[in-house]
Amino acid sequence: MPDTSLAEKYRAYLACLNAQDWDRLGDFVSNAARHNGRPLGVPGYRAMLEQDYRDIPDLQFTIELIVIEPPHVAARLTFTCAPAGDFLGLPVNGRTVTFTENVFYHFQAGKIAEVFSIVDRQAIAAQLATDH
Amino acid sequence: MPDTSLAEKYRAYLACLNAQDWDRLGDFVSNAARHNGRPLGVPGYRAMLEQDYRDIPDLQFTIELIVIEPPHVAARLTFTCAPAGDFLGLPVNGRTVTFTENVFYHFQAGKIAEVFSIVDRQAIAAQLATDH
Repeated sequence: MPDTSLAEKYRAYLACLNAQDWDRLGDFVSNAARHNGRPLGVPGYRAMLEQDYRDIPDLQFTIELIVIEPPHVAARLTFTCAPAGDFLGLPVNGRTVTFTENVFYHFQAGKIAEVFSIVDRQAIAAQLATDH
Repeated sequence: MPDTSLAEKYRAYLACLNAQDWDRLGDFVSNAARHNGRPLGVPGYRAMLEQDYRDIPDLQFTIELIVIEPPHVAARLTFTCAPAGDFLGLPVNGRTVTFTENVFYHFQAGKIAEVFSIVDRQAIAAQLATDH
């Protein structure tokens, strides 16, 4: 049976990101949060996201698929956006690209404690190779 | 509640891959299977995996994390292996590298019908950059 509360919490977390409502980030992210093995806590997590929005001013997180088995959420996210300069080492330079992220979250005490994210860099490289 | 049967089926699928027991692949993979949007069916899926084993003779699939909400399975897989030549466009050339794959499966009638996979190519690139 799906965990409705965890699904709602995750959707609220993405809404917080899409609104860049950083003062509410601590409602969703643990003080002990780690992202791809890096210990960030709320301040480091916020700094990571603020940098993402500097790199990609029109960044929006959209759920393509969500799989929930408490205490874990797995999501496939889709993005259509225009990174301003280099992104993941690729010279995107303001072009609009579409790509996905497959990401796992471990929730503890109702907050995101661990994130394992992989972004599909190869999809972006392929678009840059064909869009010239 | 976890779907034990789907978990067992998924683990049996990976055991089939690790044993390169291709004649049994159709027990786990649908005739209508798609992989990252490509319609492969069982023959195409088998050809993809056989090519993976030619590229990476010591390939073994290991589960780091599995999240199940029927009809979906999400898995974070880890690999420690030595791709013989180029892999994902990177000159690995027989070095042993460690990387992950975040992958979603949609099961239909007990078989894998759709796969959305992202391999962490950047982790491999980082290892090649520091292993010289």
